[in-house]
Amino acid sequence: MTQTPRSPQVGIIMGSDSDLPVMQQAADILAELAVPYELTIVSAHRTPKRLYDYAQTAVERGLRIIIAGAGGAAHLPGMVAAITPLPVIGVPVKTKALSGLDSLLSIVQMPAGVPVATVAIDGAKNAGLLAAQILGSADPQIREAIARYKRDLESVVIVKAAQLEQPDP
Amino acid sequence: MTQTPRSPQVGIIMGSDSDLPVMQQAADILAELAVPYELTIVSAHRTPKRLYDYAQTAVERGLRIIIAGAGGAAHLPGMVAAITPLPVIGVPVKTKALSGLDSLLSIVQMPAGVPVATVAIDGAKNAGLLAAQILGSADPQIREAIARYKRDLESVVIVKAAQLEQPDP
Amino acid sequence: MTQTPRSPQVGIIMGSDSDLPVMQQAADILAELAVPYELTIVSAHRTPKRLYDYAQTAVERGLRIIIAGAGGAAHLPGMVAAITPLPVIGVPVKTKALSGLDSLLSIVQMPAGVPVATVAIDGAKNAGLLAAQILGSADPQIREAIARYKRDLESVVIVKAAQLEQPDP
Amino acid sequence: MTQTPRSPQVGIIMGSDSDLPVMQQAADILAELAVPYELTIVSAHRTPKRLYDYAQTAVERGLRIIIAGAGGAAHLPGMVAAITPLPVIGVPVKTKALSGLDSLLSIVQMPAGVPVATVAIDGAKNAGLLAAQILGSADPQIREAIARYKRDLESVVIVKAAQLEQPDP
Amino acid sequence: MTQTPRSPQVGIIMGSDSDLPVMQQAADILAELAVPYELTIVSAHRTPKRLYDYAQTAVERGLRIIIAGAGGAAHLPGMVAAITPLPVIGVPVKTKALSGLDSLLSIVQMPAGVPVATVAIDGAKNAGLLAAQILGSADPQIREAIARYKRDLESVVIVKAAQLEQPDP
Amino acid sequence: MTQTPRSPQVGIIMGSDSDLPVMQQAADILAELAVPYELTIVSAHRTPKRLYDYAQTAVERGLRIIIAGAGGAAHLPGMVAAITPLPVIGVPVKTKALSGLDSLLSIVQMPAGVPVATVAIDGAKNAGLLAAQILGSADPQIREAIARYKRDLESVVIVKAAQLEQPDP
Amino acid sequence: MTQTPRSPQVGIIMGSDSDLPVMQQAADILAELAVPYELTIVSAHRTPKRLYDYAQTAVERGLRIIIAGAGGAAHLPGMVAAITPLPVIGVPVKTKALSGLDSLLSIVQMPAGVPVATVAIDGAKNAGLLAAQILGSADPQIREAIARYKRDLESVVIVKAAQLEQPDP
Amino acid sequence: MTQTPRSPQVGIIMGSDSDLPVMQQAADILAELAVPYELTIVSAHRTPKRLYDYAQTAVERGLRIIIAGAGGAAHLPGMVAAITPLPVIGVPVKTKALSGLDSLLSIVQMPAGVPVATVAIDGAKNAGLLAAQILGSADPQIREAIARYKRDLESVVIVKAAQLEQPDP
Repeated sequence: MTQTPRSPQVGIIMGSDSDLPVMQQAADILAELAVPYELTIVSAHRTPKRLYDYAQTAVERGLRIIIAGAGGAAHLPGMVAAITPLPVIGVPVKTKALSGLDSLLSIVQMPAGVPVATVAIDGAKNAGLLAAQILGSADPQIREAIARYKRDLESVVIVKAAQLEQPDP
Repeated sequence: MTQTPRSPQVGIIMGSDSDLPVMQQAADILAELAVPYELTIVSAHRTPKRLYDYAQTAVERGLRIIIAGAGGAAHLPGMVAAITPLPVIGVPVKTKALSGLDSLLSIVQMPAGVPVATVAIDGAKNAGLLAAQILGSADPQIREAIARYKRDLESVVIVKAAQLEQPDP
Repeated sequence: MTQTPRSPQVGIIMGSDSDLPVMQQAADILAELAVPYELTIVSAHRTPKRLYDYAQTAVERGLRIIIAGAGGAAHLPGMVAAITPLPVIGVPVKTKALSGLDSLLSIVQMPAGVPVATVAIDGAKNAGLLAAQILGSADPQIREAIARYKRDLESVVIVKAAQLEQPDP
Repeated sequence: MTQTPRSPQVGIIMGSDSDLPVMQQAADILAELAVPYELTIVSAHRTPKRLYDYAQTAVERGLRIIIAGAGGAAHLPGMVAAITPLPVIGVPVKTKALSGLDSLLSIVQMPAGVPVATVAIDGAKNAGLLAAQILGSADPQIREAIARYKRDLESVVIVKAAQLEQPDP
Repeated sequence: MTQTPRSPQVGIIMGSDSDLPVMQQAADILAELAVPYELTIVSAHRTPKRLYDYAQTAVERGLRIIIAGAGGAAHLPGMVAAITPLPVIGVPVKTKALSGLDSLLSIVQMPAGVPVATVAIDGAKNAGLLAAQILGSADPQIREAIARYKRDLESVVIVKAAQLEQPDP
Repeated sequence: MTQTPRSPQVGIIMGSDSDLPVMQQAADILAELAVPYELTIVSAHRTPKRLYDYAQTAVERGLRIIIAGAGGAAHLPGMVAAITPLPVIGVPVKTKALSGLDSLLSIVQMPAGVPVATVAIDGAKNAGLLAAQILGSADPQIREAIARYKRDLESVVIVKAAQLEQPDP
Repeated sequence: MTQTPRSPQVGIIMGSDSDLPVMQQAADILAELAVPYELTIVSAHRTPKRLYDYAQTAVERGLRIIIAGAGGAAHLPGMVAAITPLPVIGVPVKTKALSGLDSLLSIVQMPAGVPVATVAIDGAKNAGLLAAQILGSADPQIREAIARYKRDLESVVIVKAAQLEQPDP
Repeated sequence: MTQTPRSPQVGIIMGSDSDLPVMQQAADILAELAVPYELTIVSAHRTPKRLYDYAQTAVERGLRIIIAGAGGAAHLPGMVAAITPLPVIGVPVKTKALSGLDSLLSIVQMPAGVPVATVAIDGAKNAGLLAAQILGSADPQIREAIARYKRDLESVVIVKAAQLEQPDP
């Protein structure tokens, strides 16, 4: 799998390769924060056995978090969460007809007992950040990377604000 | 399993026993139409292995249709449909917060390749009828029972209409 | 009617020729699975008599399933289901203003007694597959074709996943 | 049919007797405005032949407007409008799961060529008033009754406003 | 005002000239059915006095129906209906953010006492047809024109259906 | 009108006396903050002339803000805002079928040129507070009352938090 | 900050510079009405400290109203309103997936005690006008500018109506 | 604060004590899984300073995760996430008018850079479980407790299914 040298800690999966432009953003931010990940396609509906195996072996393969993105009747995140004890982050992918409202409700409205940590529609970047925060909750180095990332976000706003407030020359 | 004497042709499953008052209506109409069925609980999220096994063995156990009811992030119908080649009928069960709109979208918005025949929110009776219609499409006896059922529906309306049109004595 | 040589088993109808690009997908998958079908236009609102006749004669003409697609206040599937004892599959066609949410609710929320097997918005391909599954529930050959189709879906995902996991050369 | 002595000018129909508490309000306001009406049950889905006949004979039976109420996948108003050249007023009846949003969209979103004059969810009283306004557009006596009704509405508000503005004794 | 030679029977008004491409369709169908109309801009929010005067004088100016189109917080149809005893047809115009759902609810959900006959989002053509049907309910000539129009709709579908059913040469 | 001794600065109006339990909360908070107000019923749809007069004379009668509450196709706030140059605060009142979503969209989605300051569904208390804030933006005494009110809100939370954190004895 | 010569009375802030094309319209109308303003970027989520400071110092810096625009989970207007006693106007900015429905609900549904005066989705122009109306409620000169602005709106409609009514030459 | 003996690892906060019946479920499941927590009230809108301080000191006080529940324009989870580098879990609390759809969108639709791990409407139990899973991703003992919890969920379903399948004696 596409991965950074160290053993992957985050598994990023998506229901279809058409979700890749969205889900790649999770991979990119993890790379930026130096968190090793793997990324592949697992379809709940077209490869149910692969889904079962992927989720079943996640702990033993050393994964600590799974990020799953899917659209429409989006069952991938919830089904992975049903099988693994690891925390699962769900990314509702925007859809043509209902703009991702179907994806969002299919992912977030999980029954008691099986949570999915849901982010915004097409919010794969935040899924990556959240995975890093989860790892960081037990790893001061990653937490510091997160804190730095937040300071950078702040700086960008402050610079842009200063430019906007500048009177035109 | 709760079933009529002949080998069951329709499997009725639900995500939780709290769905029973709704899903029993599918069983009742099948009993009325003399279609043998079985009825049990299979939770996509709490018993994923059981779901996999149930769907995987459905054909060899002689089932010809599966009716699956679930609420909220309702993954049961779609996951069964992912595993079995049999037709799957999905019943979106009404939910407390979103009144079943979440259940409906989670069930009906399946991706190309894996259909779920979705009925109305809490429409378990229609799920039973639809199962009978599907069996009836190859079985003139069941089709005739359906036709008779439809004629009865019609008669009831006509009697009620006549009563309503009657001037009060 | 446009049809395969053997007598059609599935009738595909749509409310308007503007629905053809969507509804053609039902025809294509049936052709791929060697299920004979017919395809035509029947408008509930502009040709109510034609609708009545089409549904009324469907059984005697040898149809075993009807697929009906319509958009907006989509009455075609439900009205056909009101008239024929055959199973009816409804395809909610996407609309300009409300993106097919109107079509979906108009089709799926049928009253007790008259089910419509509803698929996703613009889900005509799945309507065709579902029709094949219904025929397959009594016909092992079609069921095998469905099973093969599902294995092909799986293979495509596995190949794409392998490509994605491949490190760039 | 339940009707006032003169030949009915407005036909009030509903899909089920469970809609009567709502639809009776259309009858009541017509009675108050001395517009003769008839009221009965016609179900699009359970009595499609009756629907066809009712709509087909409406003109010759002397009806000038039809009011049709239905809930869920509410096809009655649109199907009547498809068959008769008379103006049809649709009343979306509130539903248990979706509160009548399904009824509203099923009735109002008619395709070009076949309008239904839609009123509010459970707005049967307004359907009756609108029928009277339509008759009144060619009948000064009814128009005057409408104008009087509107003045009464105004008076009631003004009296209530005066009471509210009154300082407590 | 833009109008046919005879005194206008239908007043078509819209909240803004940006609604003209939609509302012109009401005028066109009325012209086709030889119903004289007038067409102008009356904004509930920007010209409230003009709205008041337009609605107040509608009866005496000989109008028999008013068609009012507006988008967003669409108050024009309801306010006109508040002032005139004539039947008012409301056209919810599609909006940029909420696609006309806001317009639809603002127009259709009128309180008891003041109906607006609401058509589909952007359904101005149907508003024109409905106006003709209303006039036709007291005028056999217009009713016949409507019946002819409906037969033409039917013919167009039947021709298109025949073309679609034609085997390719 | 029901009012405090000094000349009223805020006019509170509602479309129907059924809105009083909600709208009274605006009056109560204004009384608490010692802002003189008047409160009455003005219906956009049943008393359009009264609406026009109320809005037209608001400035000369010394009002500085108008709070208008209404439900469903809620036109009162927007129409008042169309007529007066004063700031208008709109309160969407909860409705039976659509829970106030119709009221909210009818009030908030005003066209460019005529704003309505919209608060939450049934948010009459906040409407009163907002009116006080608006007066307070030019009146340090009212602004201080607002600041005090906010500090009280804060204290209540802090006391409740302390109680919750307290170990049970 | 970008501002007119006199000390700014209205602070316009937005969550991101991508909101500028929308929020600039608030600035433009204030400039047109000669109300001094300042305009800058303050992000609730990326610069929470800056948000706190901005809101905390608003009164002492002489601001009398704050206009805050944001999209998605739009917390900026509500958080500013939590901190300052000044009236806060919220502008829900349209979003890619949910078209601003998320922004609208995040801004308007504030709890009792902390109002935000919400305008339409992308309604920044109306936010500016509302700010002017608020200032005008204590300043006859601004109120007169508002009244003039309303008369201009009216004139534009009347001219356009006249052109539309003009028979084509 | 109400807490288990060891230093709390999870902070549970809510916007109002009316949210306690929902949020208590997060505490209960953490207690069951032997994860030490604290629980208190922090209102984004009524105690913004307390919110700022709570989030700002969370890391140094030893918290590793924060669970925040709120309803309506629910800003608490997002604002806490803006300030702390810890992972934040958001619980959308059901609301009277919009059933929690407003809470859900206000919490889940966070902008890139600041994720909130959102669970279902009223899904506080799942929030507690998710917090345990997050801790468990670095702590095999907690992960084993989670796995045991999942096995228990499974057993309960299997026992209930067996009872349902049992023929009545």
